[in-house]
Amino acid sequence: MGVPMALNLIKAGYKVVVWNRSADKCEPLKAAGATVAASPADVARQSDITFAMLSDPPAAVQVATGPGGIVEGMSAGKGYVDVSTIDPATAAAVAAAVRGTGALYLEAPVSGSKGPAEQGALIFLTAGDQALYDAAAGPLDVMGKASFFLGEVGAGANMKLVVNAVMGAMMGAFAEGLSLADRMGLQQQDVIDVVALGAIASPMFALKGPAMAKGNYPTAFPLKHQQKDLRLALAEADAAAQPLAVIAAANDLYVRARQQGHGDADFSAVLEAVKGQQQQ
Amino acid sequence: MGVPMALNLIKAGYKVVVWNRSADKCEPLKAAGATVAASPADVARQSDITFAMLSDPPAAVQVATGPGGIVEGMSAGKGYVDVSTIDPATAAAVAAAVRGTGALYLEAPVSGSKGPAEQGALIFLTAGDQALYDAAAGPLDVMGKASFFLGEVGAGANMKLVVNAVMGAMMGAFAEGLSLADRMGLQQQDVIDVVALGAIASPMFALKGPAMAKGNYPTAFPLKHQQKDLRLALAEADAAAQPLAVIAAANDLYVRARQQGHGDADFSAVLEAVKGQQQQ
Amino acid sequence: MGVPMALNLIKAGYKVVVWNRSADKCEPLKAAGATVAASPADVARQSDITFAMLSDPPAAVQVATGPGGIVEGMSAGKGYVDVSTIDPATAAAVAAAVRGTGALYLEAPVSGSKGPAEQGALIFLTAGDQALYDAAAGPLDVMGKASFFLGEVGAGANMKLVVNAVMGAMMGAFAEGLSLADRMGLQQQDVIDVVALGAIASPMFALKGPAMAKGNYPTAFPLKHQQKDLRLALAEADAAAQPLAVIAAANDLYVRARQQGHGDADFSAVLEAVKGQQQQ
Amino acid sequence: MGVPMALNLIKAGYKVVVWNRSADKCEPLKAAGATVAASPADVARQSDITFAMLSDPPAAVQVATGPGGIVEGMSAGKGYVDVSTIDPATAAAVAAAVRGTGALYLEAPVSGSKGPAEQGALIFLTAGDQALYDAAAGPLDVMGKASFFLGEVGAGANMKLVVNAVMGAMMGAFAEGLSLADRMGLQQQDVIDVVALGAIASPMFALKGPAMAKGNYPTAFPLKHQQKDLRLALAEADAAAQPLAVIAAANDLYVRARQQGHGDADFSAVLEAVKGQQQQ
Repeated sequence: MGVPMALNLIKAGYKVVVWNRSADKCEPLKAAGATVAASPADVARQSDITFAMLSDPPAAVQVATGPGGIVEGMSAGKGYVDVSTIDPATAAAVAAAVRGTGALYLEAPVSGSKGPAEQGALIFLTAGDQALYDAAAGPLDVMGKASFFLGEVGAGANMKLVVNAVMGAMMGAFAEGLSLADRMGLQQQDVIDVVALGAIASPMFALKGPAMAKGNYPTAFPLKHQQKDLRLALAEADAAAQPLAVIAAANDLYVRARQQGHGDADFSAVLEAVKGQQQQ
Repeated sequence: MGVPMALNLIKAGYKVVVWNRSADKCEPLKAAGATVAASPADVARQSDITFAMLSDPPAAVQVATGPGGIVEGMSAGKGYVDVSTIDPATAAAVAAAVRGTGALYLEAPVSGSKGPAEQGALIFLTAGDQALYDAAAGPLDVMGKASFFLGEVGAGANMKLVVNAVMGAMMGAFAEGLSLADRMGLQQQDVIDVVALGAIASPMFALKGPAMAKGNYPTAFPLKHQQKDLRLALAEADAAAQPLAVIAAANDLYVRARQQGHGDADFSAVLEAVKGQQQQ
Repeated sequence: MGVPMALNLIKAGYKVVVWNRSADKCEPLKAAGATVAASPADVARQSDITFAMLSDPPAAVQVATGPGGIVEGMSAGKGYVDVSTIDPATAAAVAAAVRGTGALYLEAPVSGSKGPAEQGALIFLTAGDQALYDAAAGPLDVMGKASFFLGEVGAGANMKLVVNAVMGAMMGAFAEGLSLADRMGLQQQDVIDVVALGAIASPMFALKGPAMAKGNYPTAFPLKHQQKDLRLALAEADAAAQPLAVIAAANDLYVRARQQGHGDADFSAVLEAVKGQQQQ
Repeated sequence: MGVPMALNLIKAGYKVVVWNRSADKCEPLKAAGATVAASPADVARQSDITFAMLSDPPAAVQVATGPGGIVEGMSAGKGYVDVSTIDPATAAAVAAAVRGTGALYLEAPVSGSKGPAEQGALIFLTAGDQALYDAAAGPLDVMGKASFFLGEVGAGANMKLVVNAVMGAMMGAFAEGLSLADRMGLQQQDVIDVVALGAIASPMFALKGPAMAKGNYPTAFPLKHQQKDLRLALAEADAAAQPLAVIAAANDLYVRARQQGHGDADFSAVLEAVKGQQQQ
């Protein structure tokens, strides 16, 4: 996803310095006018604001704080914006290292995947240093259709967790509605069409519904990851003495889907747990 | 809602005969060119297709089968379309009486309220005699933006139940997301704004969310009615040996909201049950 | 169950008049010294207090209020004690008919089955006319080990519902504990043995546990009847705006067991719903 | 609890060597004939089998592996039995350290508190080295009324978790039954009395019920600890893809009780969460 994001910045006229673990990933950007750096630290030294899009928390830590990492090139007046999806603890560790150099830190996980990245239509859920959020407004505007500044480091990850927990429960309820409709003799496609015209219409129902009605669950977001987000949301709520009865019931339903062997399917396969093992 | 629906038919060039228990309700329609009949039976005698929009099941039974009712004016070649929201048992009783005269019957509860009625943007969830559905296509098209033929009598009411059950669980999950966000130090309005841009965006969240974030629940759909639909959906599912864990948990949450005294508030007041009685 | 109950009364020295739809059922009682009457009304005419043990609500209504029924033989100074398990509405109807003759009425469903009936160890959950409860103290003491006077007609049935709802949820939790133990590598029989020695020991766990650990569910109380009691308890709670989250989750689990085809097995077969359809 | 346990060993004729962080705790044991050692290592050196009863996991680690700890005095042919309640990870760490000396290790958390300790009526849930379980049979028999060997290290803690999870759900269901009874006009004490005579009777209901009916929850096992065990059981089940719908609903109810401020009360205060905030 980093390539289309950087291309959009170049097209908008920004001077862009790039680095990737696999040097060949930088070729299209070099062709488009980017300077290729020798290391993350080298990017940071040459840039006012450094953006990182990494695959997981260990990569985020390595690129920021490892040998030749971002921190070595950071200093007061510079900023580091990590658009990877990482947990609050990782974000806090990287933030501390970056701030230790006098630089500013912004956690900015994105909502949206490859398509929105190409179209400059990502959504940035940022948190950390508001001054850096303000300074990065131009580039964020080029790469995304919206950005939010949500507060202290960790708030971006927390916002993703809240949204995904609601999403998981919504999908569970939708799967139950489809199953109930089926048992009542209604056509599931009719449910999908009626829902699409009313108050509870959502892009997710429109996108996933028709495949679900056919028993197909092509994996976009794996069920086991959806269930992990439900589990993490419940853990956060537990720590805050906040009951979440609907989300807890949805979580149990996804665990049941995993019990049935659907952990690697799309999370819409929770429908299979609702269908269960029906009497022959 | 009957008045704007009839006005749309008149505007579209249909010859319209009207009746209402309160004669003055017919005045604007008379002014617009409608003929006022002396009784429901009188409407039926003068019309090819008779539409009824009534407040509740007892009214639906009375107008159809009481003295001077629809059935007295029905005969082979005619059709009766009841767009009221009634339960499957009432629909079956009225259908039997109408069909006993040789006429056709269509249950056609609407999704949408006064605004959509005025704009001809209702959604009709019809079931019963498909020949009447076909014959009524013109008027339904004038009054609504979409209509569905769903099968046997009762299917229209069942579809409303399915959609409302999903809606109730979605709102419960959304309320839990807002509460969790609040406990995590996030702004509820930020949650609403982020949700509005993503896969789970829905008109309901956009419409209700901002008021919920302020603790306001102006009644559009009373919470006790939402809970009744969850209860009825669970009863249907129970009869069909279909588990509905998420909807069952949502139902319990709405019962708790009633326990707290929010039965007459909007169903979005389920948020108060999630908030609970927090430690001081 | 009526035969051993009547035998205990005869042995205790009471003068007993009996009737049964199948006359041969009266033979052992006649042999023991009972007078056989020609009809329920005939029993009532010859007795101060008439006890009835009937199979279901329709039989209870028929024997009490049908031709030749109890009510025809009732009058002021007499009493009718119905020890059948019937719903509050049936109990109220029979009570009204009996009281209309000036006689007293006591609903007295029993806890316990054939064994306790033979040993005079039943538990009577009575409600209705307290004067009749007092007058019937001797016979109730002969047939049971305990009796409770619980209030207005319907209270006996309600008490059974409360106890059975708690029982259903307990069994659901126990099944979950057994399954979790199994997944952790513990022996289910060890769980049963440890439970038996501690604070949560119960006759039900001791009786059902060992068979459950072997996947056997010989029917004592059918799962579909246990689930019906959970459903009725939830309906009563709903009417009273009382949330019951644990019992609602248990109810859903029993519905799932029915979905898997275990409705006619013992209610301990809810364990199969917990086990689910495990990944191969 | 260590004092009465050691006294029972002395009374039974065992030669007992003792140590406690607070030397005065050893006085009654010295008076009864015990030798007082200078350190845990000193106990281990003088004993074939060393028993430890410690307050929490950090204390268990410190006494076993800290300076002057058990491990320093352990060697092949000796055994260490830790009767403290500790988590599987702590047990595994201590087991590894002990076994590193050639000695044997037994995790043996107890069910039962001070009273059973004095009466030699504890229940030992042991796991680890079966040879040590066999060797310790005599002392365990003196101190307890039953002991179980459950398998690999961690199994003792897991068994406690399973039992406590079932217990938490049972108490939640019982609280719901009491609340439903109350809303139906039944006396809660009648429910308690009826339950006590039937299939679901349990020492816990008999002990806690009467106080619950009066709204009293004197703390024996704090609600927040009961909820922690439910949370841990759910986490174990999640890891094993085992759904636990009833236990999950119970957990949410205890979180709600904490939300209402009852975390430090007895776990029977979950009844307050069921009662909720009733309409005035």
